[in-house]
Amino acid sequence: MIKDNAAFDMKEDRFKVTYLIDGEEAEARARAWDICVEQTVEFPEELVPEGIIRDHVLGRIEVFGQQEPQCWRVVISYHVDTTAFELTQLLNVVFGNISIKPKIRVERLELCPSLLAAFKGPRFGRQGIRQRLGIPSRPILATALKPMGLSSQALADLAYQFALGGIDIIKDDHGISDQRFSPFEERAALCAEAVSKANRQTGLNCIYVPNITAPYDKLFERAKQARSLGAGGLLISPGLVGLDAIRTIADSDEIDLPIMSHPAFQGSFVTGSYGMSHYALFGQLARLAGADATIYPNYGGRFSFSKEECKQIAAGTSDEMGHIKPIFPSPGGGMTGDKVPDMLETYGKDVIFLVGGGLFKQGPDLVENSKYFRNMIDI
Amino acid sequence: MIKDNAAFDMKEDRFKVTYLIDGEEAEARARAWDICVEQTVEFPEELVPEGIIRDHVLGRIEVFGQQEPQCWRVVISYHVDTTAFELTQLLNVVFGNISIKPKIRVERLELCPSLLAAFKGPRFGRQGIRQRLGIPSRPILATALKPMGLSSQALADLAYQFALGGIDIIKDDHGISDQRFSPFEERAALCAEAVSKANRQTGLNCIYVPNITAPYDKLFERAKQARSLGAGGLLISPGLVGLDAIRTIADSDEIDLPIMSHPAFQGSFVTGSYGMSHYALFGQLARLAGADATIYPNYGGRFSFSKEECKQIAAGTSDEMGHIKPIFPSPGGGMTGDKVPDMLETYGKDVIFLVGGGLFKQGPDLVENSKYFRNMIDI
Repeated sequence: MIKDNAAFDMKEDRFKVTYLIDGEEAEARARAWDICVEQTVEFPEELVPEGIIRDHVLGRIEVFGQQEPQCWRVVISYHVDTTAFELTQLLNVVFGNISIKPKIRVERLELCPSLLAAFKGPRFGRQGIRQRLGIPSRPILATALKPMGLSSQALADLAYQFALGGIDIIKDDHGISDQRFSPFEERAALCAEAVSKANRQTGLNCIYVPNITAPYDKLFERAKQARSLGAGGLLISPGLVGLDAIRTIADSDEIDLPIMSHPAFQGSFVTGSYGMSHYALFGQLARLAGADATIYPNYGGRFSFSKEECKQIAAGTSDEMGHIKPIFPSPGGGMTGDKVPDMLETYGKDVIFLVGGGLFKQGPDLVENSKYFRNMIDI
Repeated sequence: MIKDNAAFDMKEDRFKVTYLIDGEEAEARARAWDICVEQTVEFPEELVPEGIIRDHVLGRIEVFGQQEPQCWRVVISYHVDTTAFELTQLLNVVFGNISIKPKIRVERLELCPSLLAAFKGPRFGRQGIRQRLGIPSRPILATALKPMGLSSQALADLAYQFALGGIDIIKDDHGISDQRFSPFEERAALCAEAVSKANRQTGLNCIYVPNITAPYDKLFERAKQARSLGAGGLLISPGLVGLDAIRTIADSDEIDLPIMSHPAFQGSFVTGSYGMSHYALFGQLARLAGADATIYPNYGGRFSFSKEECKQIAAGTSDEMGHIKPIFPSPGGGMTGDKVPDMLETYGKDVIFLVGGGLFKQGPDLVENSKYFRNMIDI
């Protein structure tokens, strides 16, 4: 019924997505084929036009194998042209409509060279951050300014003490945006200056990383403000502003600052049986978008990630991905001194440890507490 | 240990969120208190400073009641200042970090007047769309241009036939963005013109609604292009670009077009036992952000929503919400002629029915097929 006389020249050029699909084999096979249709043409199969649409635009099942009883590992390929070479549309092809269907989980992406070439990825990556901080090989130590409700000056005073104690990266808590307790511009100015003052005393290169997660029409402006006020990096929660906001900031020569990605509002993708894998969401996608470090809740803390899931995230930050640089895993949440040895064994040296409440609980002197954690990771 | 000498004047001014929490009572109570801490100060409880932070910034359990065995209905209030009166930070307070914790589901928001006043909501709403389309009371009929892979001209030809047949709203399929088959500007121009030509013949007011879901730095530009090319509305998938992108476009006098929200990439929030309710996500939040219609998969189609869940979404589009206008529920997916009577009974007249594949399957003549569906809803 539908014919298109336009002659598009299409060559084989496909990327792959691995899905886990639950159910009996026949049901899973039907679901796999449904993914091929739903994520591309979204059209009654019998009416899909012959030619390029049927031959190239439709998704294609490349592998269908059993993962475990009632669970199937399915590799589906899509033509790169379906993505328009946009991160937003790539996400849409990978998991847009099928996010609404049960029993499907995105395990991993295998992007082909033509698609990878459309993305610059992180501007700094592991090596770039190490250079900026002057830390050739040891683990990096980060903390967060909080609690919400403190004034900008009180937060800056905390930042000063943490920086004096040798913390490498001091970020805003992800919940501190532009509340009247500590308005963005005032806070960023005071905290950046406090860290700079501490650096002059210590000779270290601590950076202040304000949270620029903000309304759509203010995010880029905050990035520019942060830069002009002396911030050394930026914190963004892509669950709240979209992953492509990270890409835009990372790609901007005008901003030119490392980006830390925060998992707020992304949890539902990984907490159920369906959704996306930790590896794909917090590893591959954060990295592809251009984050230089990906924050996630560490195992054994007050969140629910297992050690294996955390190791998978770390793997996603450095597995082969063409020219896209490896980035830092940044496990946080519930970190205390006694957990550090195990964390070092799990993550090795290429990691940014994020210590929060533990830094306050350790003892009454925040400078000393900072030194305590700093010494623990000085391997 | 932490003191803040800044004297903020804080009055009681709180909004409420209802959560469902699974588990034994003691566990659920602990989890409720954890939400109060995690979503605000994210700080060791014993160290939370006295004064405004403990008295106002901390979340507060207002109601704790049993919903059913092993499930508790908990109302938690937060001070409006925690949100910075930003949609992004509001989402963060409601479900940011706890999205990563299991057994918690956001059921509904009760926003207080001071917080509602920060949002304009939909520019058009039900009444505004009815005025634009010249349809005082009957259900509205929409369809989507597809499949992906057709040329812009072929899509425009489809649009022309649908408009001739009396379809009221013709949108791009949500997967058609800026692929080389049908680049955005070319497609929007041809489709808008095709619909305009049909309107001149029919005397009707059909509108073309292009998909402007796009990379962060291109979305606003596409909205402006769409407007200048004669689009009558805009389609946005907030799961891909962030809910606040809708707010920005809705608030813009320069754009001044109705917005349809599409659920792509949002499914994981509602497909598991945890996450958010259909009511909150597709009803309340889409509306608060400023969508004039919220698209979601109808019950009985190829997706998994139940009839009750769909009715809940419809309720969320019109339940009392201060000055925020009621919007249209727009159920779609798998709509066929035989389902229309039941859908009319379920949704009444204030609905935008989205018919997709069914419109192509009905018979060989798309103008006739359009008339068939159009007549069915002419009540």
